[in-house]
Amino acid sequence: MPEVIIVLVGPKNEGNVGAVARAMKNFGARRLVLVDPCRIGDEARKRAMHGADILENAVTAKSLDAALRGADLVAGTTGIATASEKRFLRIAVPPKEFAERVAPVDGTVAILFGREDFGLLDGELARCDLLVTIPATPQYPVLNLSHAAAIILYELFSAKRAKGRLREASGREKEILHRALAELMRATDYAPHLRARTRIMFRRLVGRAAPSKWEFHALMGVLTRATKRIQRHERARGP
Amino acid sequence: MPEVIIVLVGPKNEGNVGAVARAMKNFGARRLVLVDPCRIGDEARKRAMHGADILENAVTAKSLDAALRGADLVAGTTGIATASEKRFLRIAVPPKEFAERVAPVDGTVAILFGREDFGLLDGELARCDLLVTIPATPQYPVLNLSHAAAIILYELFSAKRAKGRLREASGREKEILHRALAELMRATDYAPHLRARTRIMFRRLVGRAAPSKWEFHALMGVLTRATKRIQRHERARGP
Repeated sequence: MPEVIIVLVGPKNEGNVGAVARAMKNFGARRLVLVDPCRIGDEARKRAMHGADILENAVTAKSLDAALRGADLVAGTTGIATASEKRFLRIAVPPKEFAERVAPVDGTVAILFGREDFGLLDGELARCDLLVTIPATPQYPVLNLSHAAAIILYELFSAKRAKGRLREASGREKEILHRALAELMRATDYAPHLRARTRIMFRRLVGRAAPSKWEFHALMGVLTRATKRIQRHERARGP
Repeated sequence: MPEVIIVLVGPKNEGNVGAVARAMKNFGARRLVLVDPCRIGDEARKRAMHGADILENAVTAKSLDAALRGADLVAGTTGIATASEKRFLRIAVPPKEFAERVAPVDGTVAILFGREDFGLLDGELARCDLLVTIPATPQYPVLNLSHAAAIILYELFSAKRAKGRLREASGREKEILHRALAELMRATDYAPHLRARTRIMFRRLVGRAAPSKWEFHALMGVLTRATKRIQRHERARGP
């Protein structure tokens, strides 16, 4: 099982933050990171119950990037999922599939929860390797923040460690891979206004696929080899 | 899918009751029954959010028996599960297994949640056909009431309707079955001080097994046939 970091982005209700700390304690998660949080006071401590130590040790990060430093996989939660390929930014998996996907990871998994009212913004979702959404009735799919956290932590706790798995590529390796893709796009004069979404799409694909180290090296080989070949030709052709 | 009745027994915190109503709204459950509840006020309504109508229409039952009238299956939730056959009163299944078991039921399923501090009492657990427990860390397995409800409602919502299933015995038929067992125990002079626990054990077995109507009739046939045979012999032997 990976180490789990619960990242709350812009929580507005301290009671919810406390309730998340309690759910973390119930399901054996310990690291709570807050980005731009509301004031944490008595109500949060009351709701945390025996998770008060998690609340006490919660770290407030200066930015989302700072919060995600060291994470090998970044998962975002969203209440608005889509099956439309056109809205790929919000294609998400259900919690059980997420848990099965994440259980064999050896590193650190950050799980992002957005604001009670607006959720995660597009720029924050773009940073995620994987999106999770909790199936709920279309009439009212917006769950309470701590309910959403409890359900996802419950699924993670319940997921059995996958057997006979390969060693998975680390977060750093995957970033190298993403950079390699960006370089290839640049080398191929890929339409600049499409690059951002293609990078996100690739990030998600890699996030779901969970490449092994072996696959990482193989993919890197293909990408860098292509990039170098193009660059060499460009140089040979001259300016 | 069955119709679900959420029964809160002795809730002490109105905020929790409101949060349960919200989770019910998220997952398409509508009937909330309260037994011996705390006062329901503004905090409950605030936490219910769009589930305010469920809170508004909640019924306060005079007793647990009144709350369970008409239920075809009664499930209890417990934070203290056991695998020990000796403590059979508390043998429970995880939420996913519960949901799979319950999804094909056509009738009404009542799900009982106990007090925030003491849970359900032994007498209340004895009334349950099935127990559910949410796996959590042994260091702190006590979930917030609304978190527990959200997780179980989520699993029910996620469970796919089983295909090609048989028609299940109704709640009334199962009660007839339980009475038939009691009569057989009486007919066989089964040790009176052991009858109560044997009845509960049988209730649980039937609860997990989910007999079809065909199986109900077959079981009834065996029990009543045995009882009648004994009674006839007793009569023939004389007083």
